[in-house]
Amino acid sequence: MENIKVERLLINYKTLDMFKRFKAYGNQELSMQEELQNKFIENNIESPFYGIYYANNLAARMCLYETDKQYDHYFEPPQDYLTLWKLEVLPDYRGRGYGKALVEFAKSFHLPIKTNPLINSQGFWEKMGFQKAHYDMHRDLGENPLIWLPDGVKEKGKEREIQIEN
Amino acid sequence: MENIKVERLLINYKTLDMFKRFKAYGNQELSMQEELQNKFIENNIESPFYGIYYANNLAARMCLYETDKQYDHYFEPPQDYLTLWKLEVLPDYRGRGYGKALVEFAKSFHLPIKTNPLINSQGFWEKMGFQKAHYDMHRDLGENPLIWLPDGVKEKGKEREIQIEN
Repeated sequence: MENIKVERLLINYKTLDMFKRFKAYGNQELSMQEELQNKFIENNIESPFYGIYYANNLAARMCLYETDKQYDHYFEPPQDYLTLWKLEVLPDYRGRGYGKALVEFAKSFHLPIKTNPLINSQGFWEKMGFQKAHYDMHRDLGENPLIWLPDGVKEKGKEREIQIEN
Repeated sequence: MENIKVERLLINYKTLDMFKRFKAYGNQELSMQEELQNKFIENNIESPFYGIYYANNLAARMCLYETDKQYDHYFEPPQDYLTLWKLEVLPDYRGRGYGKALVEFAKSFHLPIKTNPLINSQGFWEKMGFQKAHYDMHRDLGENPLIWLPDGVKEKGKEREIQIEN
């Protein structure tokens, strides 16, 4: 079995170039590119990106960002939690457990996790132990949030809802 | 030229059934379905959906939600603004200006608009006068927000950024 190593990505021109192969390349990457150019720094800005390399090629990546509990609208009691986005494995590297390894890495912080995946990836997330968050339009707007709950953490608002309905 | 009429959608079983034809069907629609079933109401819940019918078929739709200026992190000075999502025209009805009609309807409220479109639809939004919001990770996470500014409204944070860089 392949030994899979998840590492925090150093943002430099080489990393940004490898990001171009990923489908979810967007404003975030463009803004990092600009930052690198404006500051004339060659290397190694701290980043929210984690990834898996295979033979010096970035094969998979994700972003993780920790939100303070004072801004938590998902969990009970309010928690510091992680938002996970841009989870993506390049087509040539699928079926090796890279996606799973990244999600397990995220879980290893023992914080609840929120993600807003593409609708057709729901099956993968269920296998990873994620569940649909109760939809709240004011909070979620166009999102379809999924959450992962570590032991002792509940989804917010379930009790409130039951009270209202009885 | 076809007379295009944008109307606020009444949520009932018929509307929810027509929503199933749209690609962005997700938690929001499922939660409306549940609500309808739990409350034994036949008809006409107020909704954030607007759409265009063609011969009794829902051909295009979008969602609009107004956020109070106290929660505005995009505009200067802080404004009430609209979030627009799930803009979608069914394949059989494309090329008739329905997407444009929906966006123009949204603009007719004279509030700034924020949307988070699919990356490959950027061209359409530019034609509609939208521009990329400056990417702010804490606020935007995995989003690629585009904004539309009515007269007299600026994007937030441009000045601050220049100050820091000088």
